[in-house]
Amino acid sequence: MANSLDNPPPHQVVIIGGGFGGLYAAKTLAKAAVNVTLIDQRNFHLFQPLLYQVATGTLSPADISSPLRAVLNKSQNTKVLLGKANDIDPVAQKVFVGDEEIPYDTLIVATGAKHSYFGKDNWEEFAPGLKTVEDAIEMRRRIFTAFEAAEKETDALKRQAWLTFVIVGGGPTGVELAGAIAELAYQTLKADFRNINTSEAKIILLEGMDRILPPFVPELSQSAAASLEKLGVIVQTKALVTDIQNNIVTIKQEDGIKEIASKTILWAAGVKASPMGQVLAARTNVELDRAGRVIVESDLSIHGYPDIFVIGDLANFSHQNGKPLPGVAPVAKQQGQYVATLIKQRLQGNILPFFSYADRGSLAMIGQNFAVVDFGFIRLTGFLAWLFWLVIHIYFLIEFDNKLVVIIQWAWNYFTRNRGARLITGIDGNSNYYSPDTNQQAVKA
Amino acid sequence: MANSLDNPPPHQVVIIGGGFGGLYAAKTLAKAAVNVTLIDQRNFHLFQPLLYQVATGTLSPADISSPLRAVLNKSQNTKVLLGKANDIDPVAQKVFVGDEEIPYDTLIVATGAKHSYFGKDNWEEFAPGLKTVEDAIEMRRRIFTAFEAAEKETDALKRQAWLTFVIVGGGPTGVELAGAIAELAYQTLKADFRNINTSEAKIILLEGMDRILPPFVPELSQSAAASLEKLGVIVQTKALVTDIQNNIVTIKQEDGIKEIASKTILWAAGVKASPMGQVLAARTNVELDRAGRVIVESDLSIHGYPDIFVIGDLANFSHQNGKPLPGVAPVAKQQGQYVATLIKQRLQGNILPFFSYADRGSLAMIGQNFAVVDFGFIRLTGFLAWLFWLVIHIYFLIEFDNKLVVIIQWAWNYFTRNRGARLITGIDGNSNYYSPDTNQQAVKA
Repeated sequence: MANSLDNPPPHQVVIIGGGFGGLYAAKTLAKAAVNVTLIDQRNFHLFQPLLYQVATGTLSPADISSPLRAVLNKSQNTKVLLGKANDIDPVAQKVFVGDEEIPYDTLIVATGAKHSYFGKDNWEEFAPGLKTVEDAIEMRRRIFTAFEAAEKETDALKRQAWLTFVIVGGGPTGVELAGAIAELAYQTLKADFRNINTSEAKIILLEGMDRILPPFVPELSQSAAASLEKLGVIVQTKALVTDIQNNIVTIKQEDGIKEIASKTILWAAGVKASPMGQVLAARTNVELDRAGRVIVESDLSIHGYPDIFVIGDLANFSHQNGKPLPGVAPVAKQQGQYVATLIKQRLQGNILPFFSYADRGSLAMIGQNFAVVDFGFIRLTGFLAWLFWLVIHIYFLIEFDNKLVVIIQWAWNYFTRNRGARLITGIDGNSNYYSPDTNQQAVKA
Repeated sequence: MANSLDNPPPHQVVIIGGGFGGLYAAKTLAKAAVNVTLIDQRNFHLFQPLLYQVATGTLSPADISSPLRAVLNKSQNTKVLLGKANDIDPVAQKVFVGDEEIPYDTLIVATGAKHSYFGKDNWEEFAPGLKTVEDAIEMRRRIFTAFEAAEKETDALKRQAWLTFVIVGGGPTGVELAGAIAELAYQTLKADFRNINTSEAKIILLEGMDRILPPFVPELSQSAAASLEKLGVIVQTKALVTDIQNNIVTIKQEDGIKEIASKTILWAAGVKASPMGQVLAARTNVELDRAGRVIVESDLSIHGYPDIFVIGDLANFSHQNGKPLPGVAPVAKQQGQYVATLIKQRLQGNILPFFSYADRGSLAMIGQNFAVVDFGFIRLTGFLAWLFWLVIHIYFLIEFDNKLVVIIQWAWNYFTRNRGARLITGIDGNSNYYSPDTNQQAVKA
């Protein structure tokens, strides 16, 4: 016993979630005198900003995924635990994962967000969102199956519904999806079909606000809309989606109500916090915002629980300018690094100033050779912005896993305008491969 | 009417199946004065010889798949039809695909083979095979989940069952799977876990005959077995599998009956012809062999139906040396090219000599830096054979679709000994992600 008092067990840090927030927290703690347990349901970190390229057949899931164990295998103080954290006990300082109890001295909750249908959960079946690898494969299946079904359809109206793609939400994901589908229809797939002319496809991007890409300055939004339209995308702003039924989107615009017949409706409109927010609220009485995010203190801890931190998309941090920080990768990453540094400083009896987000700018890809970039001090559109987008994404992709293969894949696609990853995969509820005759709203596989 | 008599419609060739046989037939007909319809259930051609690299986390499905429409988009006389051919009418000369009837003048059936459990179909659930992209993803899930479950397991016996991998069948696929899993356990994953030592994994390759790789000469079989053993694989020949239950393989050897406790049992033992063989037998009275393959004439047509050809794994062609040709890609490819050439010659009133297979040799990959190659006139083992294997596979991969990315991925894996594609994906029957707590025999997703 004397021995264990002389050498107290190291401080236990438990991190729930291996997204940008959790992973950067773990990496920043790699050489600290603490033990780290990173809990995730999946065995890989997902580079979500490129998920739309999986959904549209440019990249494979593995190209944008890094096995968590491989990323952290040199951190001798770090254990990866594959499982789902169901509950926490903030008094006994434990996390419950299945039947296991994981004790912690400090807890970092970084479980992120999922799609939100603003209370209309029945829309999900008809308009899937894009958060996971499985979501991307499902979107890819729907997009490429739509062209196949159009090729087989003899009725002109139905064929047009198969060739109409509606993307709900004009944020970066919606814009990137719309641009990529337009390039598919008007370029990549042009020579592939015999009965249909893929150039007759309609790609409609719906945004409720008065402009797309609302986080950007109005000039960049206009420039993005103009280049989307040049690619062939129909951009409709001030278009509120009031209903989504099987194959029909109902929108309300200034000039009235309109219905759009489309077999492929994709959701890029809203997110809500993951259910761990509810668990935290129940166990600690912490306040949640309307989106279910946890209102955090200025050091990212929970009110009354200085040993529990919430970071990334699950956190509502409003101490910087009164507005919550956006749910983007750089915020999560900086918060993960901040909390890890704070833990290290605390163990040495020091304190850290409050968290402060260094906004290095926003960027969105529109299509080949065109992106928009806003660094604050400089704004770019067009080819130069596109190059910036590439360089920045390659830089972040290779930061913890050398995804050389992505660069080659992009270069290859750029020069050939081909997309090799346009597979329709999966097995439906009746153990059959998906086919053009499968309903688009089939059970996910 | 006079007009259509003056210009009779072009000869219609219908090909069922876009594997090596069907695809090479279509490509050889690309410039002929015929119309071609290629029917497949999937929208891509799969390079099956590399499927084991998807199952073991080296390559992504898209790396070894080529969209059929993209491969054939320059063949203006060729249409791709995505759908499942259910039936044929050899008198009215029609193929039935869903509700559609596709008329043909010449029919090429190339629907291949699927696993066979020698009548023990209940084994499939416990010992999945490797024929499709979905099979490979399921195998990959089971392999990587087994290591995760072992990491969590506290009972020593159960942990050993999670770390025991049994591969049934010592042909090329079984050998390649065993070698790749050994490299995973003893090299790639060594630093990734904290509770288990992955070097304690047992990889057992079971073969019923007296040596592995029976198509090769005995010296090469011995050399392959020796290098598998050097990699850490336990090679058991003359081991007949008599039963497979959940997590238990029963084998009969000369010294008696033995049970092996294993949570991951992989099937690489046998194949049978696809159900189209039964359809052909019912409609044309053609004879099938024990494996369900269609006994074909010396020009690959069906007895009494010179306008119907059967090629590839579905065909039993025994005219060359009394034994059926093996079910390998080069046979299917040469048969596809032969039938296409025969059709072109027939239209010009010529005939072709009987089909004859030019055997250019066999090869199998054992592991990094070691393969076996038998060209007949020269036999190689070790590093040189491994280089041959690489060059030949790259050559065939890039023949119709430039899979540059595979070369880069291989080079990267070779130098880093890392495997980026080791993702556990899919959603189980309860809409949860697969986890180490999920039973290995979960419903496929």
